[in-house]
Amino acid sequence: MAIITLTTDFGEKDYFAGAVKGAIYSELNDVKIVDISHSVSPFHISEAVYIIKNAYKNFPKGSIHIIGIDSELTPENKHLAVKLDEHYFICANNGILSLIASEIKPEKIVEINIHDKVQTNFTVLDVFVKVACHLARGGTLEVIGKSIQDIKYIKQYEPTVNSDKNQILGHVIYIDNYGNVVTNISRKFFENVGKGRDFTIRARNTSFSSIHETYSHAINFNVEKDKRQEEDGKKLALFNSAGFIELAVYKSNLKTVGGASTLFGLDYLDTISINFE
Amino acid sequence: MAIITLTTDFGEKDYFAGAVKGAIYSELNDVKIVDISHSVSPFHISEAVYIIKNAYKNFPKGSIHIIGIDSELTPENKHLAVKLDEHYFICANNGILSLIASEIKPEKIVEINIHDKVQTNFTVLDVFVKVACHLARGGTLEVIGKSIQDIKYIKQYEPTVNSDKNQILGHVIYIDNYGNVVTNISRKFFENVGKGRDFTIRARNTSFSSIHETYSHAINFNVEKDKRQEEDGKKLALFNSAGFIELAVYKSNLKTVGGASTLFGLDYLDTISINFE
Amino acid sequence: MAIITLTTDFGEKDYFAGAVKGAIYSELNDVKIVDISHSVSPFHISEAVYIIKNAYKNFPKGSIHIIGIDSELTPENKHLAVKLDEHYFICANNGILSLIASEIKPEKIVEINIHDKVQTNFTVLDVFVKVACHLARGGTLEVIGKSIQDIKYIKQYEPTVNSDKNQILGHVIYIDNYGNVVTNISRKFFENVGKGRDFTIRARNTSFSSIHETYSHAINFNVEKDKRQEEDGKKLALFNSAGFIELAVYKSNLKTVGGASTLFGLDYLDTISINFE
Repeated sequence: MAIITLTTDFGEKDYFAGAVKGAIYSELNDVKIVDISHSVSPFHISEAVYIIKNAYKNFPKGSIHIIGIDSELTPENKHLAVKLDEHYFICANNGILSLIASEIKPEKIVEINIHDKVQTNFTVLDVFVKVACHLARGGTLEVIGKSIQDIKYIKQYEPTVNSDKNQILGHVIYIDNYGNVVTNISRKFFENVGKGRDFTIRARNTSFSSIHETYSHAINFNVEKDKRQEEDGKKLALFNSAGFIELAVYKSNLKTVGGASTLFGLDYLDTISINFE
Repeated sequence: MAIITLTTDFGEKDYFAGAVKGAIYSELNDVKIVDISHSVSPFHISEAVYIIKNAYKNFPKGSIHIIGIDSELTPENKHLAVKLDEHYFICANNGILSLIASEIKPEKIVEINIHDKVQTNFTVLDVFVKVACHLARGGTLEVIGKSIQDIKYIKQYEPTVNSDKNQILGHVIYIDNYGNVVTNISRKFFENVGKGRDFTIRARNTSFSSIHETYSHAINFNVEKDKRQEEDGKKLALFNSAGFIELAVYKSNLKTVGGASTLFGLDYLDTISINFE
Repeated sequence: MAIITLTTDFGEKDYFAGAVKGAIYSELNDVKIVDISHSVSPFHISEAVYIIKNAYKNFPKGSIHIIGIDSELTPENKHLAVKLDEHYFICANNGILSLIASEIKPEKIVEINIHDKVQTNFTVLDVFVKVACHLARGGTLEVIGKSIQDIKYIKQYEPTVNSDKNQILGHVIYIDNYGNVVTNISRKFFENVGKGRDFTIRARNTSFSSIHETYSHAINFNVEKDKRQEEDGKKLALFNSAGFIELAVYKSNLKTVGGASTLFGLDYLDTISINFE
């Protein structure tokens, strides 16, 4: 049974996601529809990329992923259907694919042309659903568009290294539900530059001199149990499940005690530095 | 396979929606349950109507739609099961059906009486689920209630025209996830009154003299690319995907730069005027 | 077809819930995944318990419930798979099971050991999904862990009675989407102590002398219709659908007029007293 996933900025309240699911079931009875997220910040391509890149890999090969972010057809924002890593992606050519494909080259990209005469302000419903259902029925990319090579490129915020190879500069690329701050510095990038040297991570007024493998690795479980509570709220850096350095607060809650983003005063695109000794 | 949809004001956190899904699966193994929205503002009938009316049409004929808004049984709030436009709706007789049925006459309305002895403060679980599963198994409306003709009527905020036929007065009926402001003035109503004349839409201190077909139609794509960014935040009026005049801000985000609702200072039921020349 | 439910504090935005669903579908094609809630307050065990306890009972026997709250493996936070009330629960041994099992003794508890070498900061994905899919395929608990009897116990906030048997002291255990305040005083506890005597419920500056069966029982439907509106906003106590005494405001909305929690100034763990005459 085909799987179609949805990643959008529709929010949880409006009729948009419901309408899209209804339209898919009207075309296909035998399909699984999976909500990945409808709470991407409006028009936030980078957030959508972080979410879909880390979610899609867990789905079976052949899954079809609709990305409904900034998808309206414009003279420069055509629609794409893509095969990449044995998954299908349907999105606008607004740069999002250049980020999804930053590590894995797409097998095939087509610019959708069977629906390019449809004038709509609800692209996901009127175009992407049709394309997804075509693919779910086993249809090919060739039938729905013309093959292209060049896609719109947008700057990915990549970490940089200075010429002395003793400093990495990176950025905040995502803040999660716990307020934990995800940087664009991957474990691989960090290890290639650091080569085992001691280091200090600095972000605004906060610093860290170690990176943990899990959240609780930062916690001292030898403390007597009745003092353990004090470990809650401890700050730590770790390699997160997406493979990036993340700055976190142990057992944080943005609505009560605060989280790393609020306690460290960090926001999207803020700078993170790592200095090696 | 039957489809049962859920539109409620339960919110995303509480156990209510989960309990309802569990109860449906306990009665029917072979059913698709689709969340349309659980984030309708509490007891907000008009919001619920805007959401379900625009979502249901996309589902296959025969789908069963549970509307869990203000559904507790009271001396004047009986429970209804309705066939309308070849879809089934289950809701309280609180006026919501009069709005759903404002354009399409129901084929059949029954006042549910098989569960009218159930004393419950969780109507959707204890009554609506039973009725939905009965319909999903192919049961008829006649079995579960007595046929009625008159339902509770609530005032729908309809736009009005003055006697000189040169002014429409309408209202805000919905504000969406992007902060875009939906009016109750449909394209048809506007065109019937306007007959192609020039016009000015006014809402508080903002005005518009054109209505676009899509959001990006308002954007000048001949501007040099590096100045294009300035087009973000442009205000515009358009006919939205539900067929109503909508006041929007291009690529808005309520949590950062604001949206039409916050930037124009517009809220539910605020007045919108259109003057024709 | 097996049912796997998800109750987590992942929130609605992040990739976590999507990744988990993808991983389940990668292992099992023939399964129903049901979101119970992803909006549990971060690390809030008591909220998670209230939600899962009231939701799970509605699912078919044999359903598998993943609880992703504070689930990272630590020296004292092992992972459990449990059969209780003919349902399966997969969670960390962080006290949550002691609350779920407060009334119903588990048939079998195993400490998961097939994945105890997996170092992960995404336990639900890397451990709980594997266990859930094993159970969904009909696998036994014995295969995945060693049977244990003692689980971590955390204090459940139980109501108390004074020695004169004329006062109950309880606490707020949950605040719902409408702002209604749920206490830990069950109908059974109340009736056992009260034995039909008159009483006064006090919470901060508010008091109630009756407990209704439904929300609308508190409303006077003999008032003329045009004055009925005044009944909205009425305060009331009732036995809620979970069987606890709840303090509510009729047709409340936390974002506009406020709800019981904001209007009475009540928060999680605040004290509620009931004095009998």
